[in-house]
Amino acid sequence: MNFSDQYFMKQAFIEAQKAKEKDEVPVGAIVVCNNQIIARTHNLTETLNDVTAHAEMLAITSAAEFLGGKYLHDCTLYVTLEPCVMCAGALNWAQLKRIVYGAADEKRGFSRCQPSLIHPKTTITSGIMNDESQQIIQDFFKSKR
Amino acid sequence: MNFSDQYFMKQAFIEAQKAKEKDEVPVGAIVVCNNQIIARTHNLTETLNDVTAHAEMLAITSAAEFLGGKYLHDCTLYVTLEPCVMCAGALNWAQLKRIVYGAADEKRGFSRCQPSLIHPKTTITSGIMNDESQQIIQDFFKSKR
Repeated sequence: MNFSDQYFMKQAFIEAQKAKEKDEVPVGAIVVCNNQIIARTHNLTETLNDVTAHAEMLAITSAAEFLGGKYLHDCTLYVTLEPCVMCAGALNWAQLKRIVYGAADEKRGFSRCQPSLIHPKTTITSGIMNDESQQIIQDFFKSKR
Repeated sequence: MNFSDQYFMKQAFIEAQKAKEKDEVPVGAIVVCNNQIIARTHNLTETLNDVTAHAEMLAITSAAEFLGGKYLHDCTLYVTLEPCVMCAGALNWAQLKRIVYGAADEKRGFSRCQPSLIHPKTTITSGIMNDESQQIIQDFFKSKR
């Protein structure tokens, strides 16, 4: 039971908390390969002054660096928020085995787009730690008003 | 006439030729702000071992670095090939004034997706240097068979 989706999403959530501490939109991600965490990242768009620095993008780059190959066929990405179109496109190129996300993102999430933005070999699981992942973002935007 | 779309796309095409010389899929991009070229990039996915290293992604990051701000409201991106979903998503976040591309990409291009992946404030022009931009990619893949 150590290697459950709940366990790994908790690790992604810890990354989201690190983003929050930096006053970044609190989204965190990890990449898991053979039950090993090979990348831990969080949103850094403000810190890096770069719209492309989403947690998932940094996670893909970091995991590819670790593996020494740009395809992530044997990897699962855990991310606290539903990936946006950019990140879904990147995850498609990387051909992951599986994507697990926490809260849905109705405005910016990839799942509102047709045809599917996800690679046909990638399976999707959603709603793991949904409430916490949604709450941390709601609290963040509330604090900005 | 120096600052025509044709002129700037030629500069993006020169970047595509640099990619070709590195045995990368030959796509090049530039970002123009007030008729000044502020970023010149080409596809580096093989060199960097990173699926996210498309010409457009590198161009957005580079232009934001140059401007000291992550939004590219006053900028035009010229790219030799129609942006993919990932790049269209990134261009959406960056809120460019305008995107100009050369050849269409029927399999991977953003324009096959609904709802539109492009920011409502961004205008699109396509087909500038279409033939050359398409030819360099066709020749590249032919050489790989």
